[in-house]
Amino acid sequence: MTSFIRALRFTSPRLPFICTGAVERVISAFRSVSGDEGVSVGLAVREQHGKDESVHRCQPPDVVVFPRSVEEVSALAKICHHHQLPIIPFGTGTGLEGGVGALKGGVCFSLRKMEQVLDLHQEDFDVTVEPGVTRKSLNSYLRDTGLWFPVDPGADASLCGMAATSASGTNAVRYGTMRENVLNLEVVLADGTILHTAGKGRRPRKTSAGYNLTNLFVGSEGTLGIITKTTLRLYGIPESMVSAVCSFPSVQSAVDSTVQILQAGVPIARIEFLDDVMMNACNRFNNLSYAVTPTLFLEFHGELQKHGGAEEITRDNGGSDFAWAEDEETRSRLWKARHDAWYAALALRPGCPIAGHVGDGNFHCLIVLDPNDQDEVQRVHSFTERLARRALSMDGTCTGEHGIGLGKRALLKEEVGPLAIEVMQGLKATLDPKNLMNPGKVL
Amino acid sequence: MTSFIRALRFTSPRLPFICTGAVERVISAFRSVSGDEGVSVGLAVREQHGKDESVHRCQPPDVVVFPRSVEEVSALAKICHHHQLPIIPFGTGTGLEGGVGALKGGVCFSLRKMEQVLDLHQEDFDVTVEPGVTRKSLNSYLRDTGLWFPVDPGADASLCGMAATSASGTNAVRYGTMRENVLNLEVVLADGTILHTAGKGRRPRKTSAGYNLTNLFVGSEGTLGIITKTTLRLYGIPESMVSAVCSFPSVQSAVDSTVQILQAGVPIARIEFLDDVMMNACNRFNNLSYAVTPTLFLEFHGELQKHGGAEEITRDNGGSDFAWAEDEETRSRLWKARHDAWYAALALRPGCPIAGHVGDGNFHCLIVLDPNDQDEVQRVHSFTERLARRALSMDGTCTGEHGIGLGKRALLKEEVGPLAIEVMQGLKATLDPKNLMNPGKVL
Repeated sequence: MTSFIRALRFTSPRLPFICTGAVERVISAFRSVSGDEGVSVGLAVREQHGKDESVHRCQPPDVVVFPRSVEEVSALAKICHHHQLPIIPFGTGTGLEGGVGALKGGVCFSLRKMEQVLDLHQEDFDVTVEPGVTRKSLNSYLRDTGLWFPVDPGADASLCGMAATSASGTNAVRYGTMRENVLNLEVVLADGTILHTAGKGRRPRKTSAGYNLTNLFVGSEGTLGIITKTTLRLYGIPESMVSAVCSFPSVQSAVDSTVQILQAGVPIARIEFLDDVMMNACNRFNNLSYAVTPTLFLEFHGELQKHGGAEEITRDNGGSDFAWAEDEETRSRLWKARHDAWYAALALRPGCPIAGHVGDGNFHCLIVLDPNDQDEVQRVHSFTERLARRALSMDGTCTGEHGIGLGKRALLKEEVGPLAIEVMQGLKATLDPKNLMNPGKVL
Repeated sequence: MTSFIRALRFTSPRLPFICTGAVERVISAFRSVSGDEGVSVGLAVREQHGKDESVHRCQPPDVVVFPRSVEEVSALAKICHHHQLPIIPFGTGTGLEGGVGALKGGVCFSLRKMEQVLDLHQEDFDVTVEPGVTRKSLNSYLRDTGLWFPVDPGADASLCGMAATSASGTNAVRYGTMRENVLNLEVVLADGTILHTAGKGRRPRKTSAGYNLTNLFVGSEGTLGIITKTTLRLYGIPESMVSAVCSFPSVQSAVDSTVQILQAGVPIARIEFLDDVMMNACNRFNNLSYAVTPTLFLEFHGELQKHGGAEEITRDNGGSDFAWAEDEETRSRLWKARHDAWYAALALRPGCPIAGHVGDGNFHCLIVLDPNDQDEVQRVHSFTERLARRALSMDGTCTGEHGIGLGKRALLKEEVGPLAIEVMQGLKATLDPKNLMNPGKVL
């Protein structure tokens, strides 16, 4: 069965998808679950679902299904399980490690039709969302409640996708990553059974009941199951937020300031670092006039007054042009450079700017390249490998917040060692003995 | 082999431990690893290691070993694995769910001789500790660094034991539990191999590299392996701490105030609730004169001034006698009632006071009973079962921070359901196929 569909895939993409025999029966079974409009074999749709926002090439699935409920996901997964077809979950496609490519063909589960916000409990600070709900749409939904969900990876990713990739972002210093903010998951396993990692309907703010299945699935990148519901911890919107920006004579002085601010126990929500190349790009992109030097953007949540301590620390480290912003408009203007860093970088070529979530020791190099220039792609690949190995040589990780996906599997082995890989393979084999769930990723 | 030792166990405790044949050979193998003084079969030592601080009866192991290094733990575990002897890790014995009882006999690994604080990285805010290092001893060690480890379950537990039981406590509102603060674990598996959950020597503040093995072992209560090193996240000691206490006319008004303070995004570190019975006990125990009504103790970390917002919220809910404390001496005096609650409760009989970490929705009932009165024990047992089922019926958990151990296995099944139990059993079977690691606990 698999080979049938895969054969078609390899004779595609230019030939129309021809349904014959076994293939037709599988497609027909999918349609009986999700309707005609819930199953697509069209090339354009398949290609849309074979690629994320990374440089990894498009590897389209054979079929894309659009389930409307967990029951449909379960029924579709059972069909895949019976026919041993790979399953690739798809949220918004905003990942950065090639996690959605259909390496072995198979069936992409696009979850965008499941877009309900369920069970908001304002007094308990939790909410449950389906996989089509994105970070921004949840925060819009919450607007009048005084609550928010602060994990912010930049992209308007789906929250279930963020759980699947263990996403984080600028607010992690204060609020943690998805690991710290998922209370429960509903997961459809490879055989179609529906698991609730913390028990059905449960939403304990804190628990020590049995093995932490929730955090086994957070960051599993679709290789252990399809996340169909995520219960999230919410926070009160801080009564006040104060932002600041400061220029530094060197990267070292900016980093030293960061360490000292954290050591002083100043309750900071974000500390973002931008290097001189990034600042130059931001200035040009947004017509701003920040000093073209290493720069820190800081934000304090819930403070009633400015944090003089932080300003003093930066001054002691040679920082200058320290600017505070208290009202929302000034804060937005001040943060605009940081928020648009990604797009500013895209407009910059050549160049390799650096943007760092230095408050949690994590930084990004934004390398703008021509994907059609194979020599350039190769040089960038060598650079990123060297960069990751440098992080590993300093006791760090090759991936702070984007996961392993397709691109970092060799680095994962170096990072955790053969026994940890063996343990991960054992867990994978326990939950997905036929290796149907997003095969070829992570391990 | 196991039955040999177990037979001895059942003819004990009053008979001396007689070594013959196979038993002698095992003991001799242990001694060749850890020396004569590293192996004990004496009844007193075994009984000390068969019980924690809960009401569960003492179930002594057949032998207690005192390894001095991870290599010794590994070598001893290999002997146990070869002879299929149960392994029960032991830290400080301060657990509250009967986790250290040797239900099937076997070998207790008392880890107190491994007591080094290793690899403090002040600028990276992390430290690695061996299993003999307790929470208080780590904070003493850190005293001159300006850093601290804030997770505080009350008892001066070992940090590796706190990782094993997923401990938390009063500071969890701001700093999280062990789940959020363990960066890496060194674990000796059932077959004696040494696993580093995040890779050997790694200490990433944030990572999304592969499956989260660290949090699979956090809270596994010794049933998946023996934790021999824990790498912990540290924090800067807040530049200032401000405490407050406030009395309320009812439990509801205290709870409403808590919810509203959290909704307001006030950056609070602790919110502790004590009911009237508890306050009365505390007054009597410490010769204090607090109002005998439902009471909140609050603490704000890193604030430069008092949080008027919190005071206003409590007043709106009928709170009175709001008292602030800024200097350390006044703060200590104010918190004394809360800190001594456990001992105050022990001095109280009959009575059932309540102390709650209401900031994270978790509370304790402290029930003082006579363990020799079987009727009373039975009534208390019925009450605690009803209490846990009430929590479950409200979408909560049967155990916020003490784990499952021996006492809550049936409740765990109710909480997570049969499929999650099956998944947990599958994970256990993958990591410990012979069921040697702390058998009879959790599952």
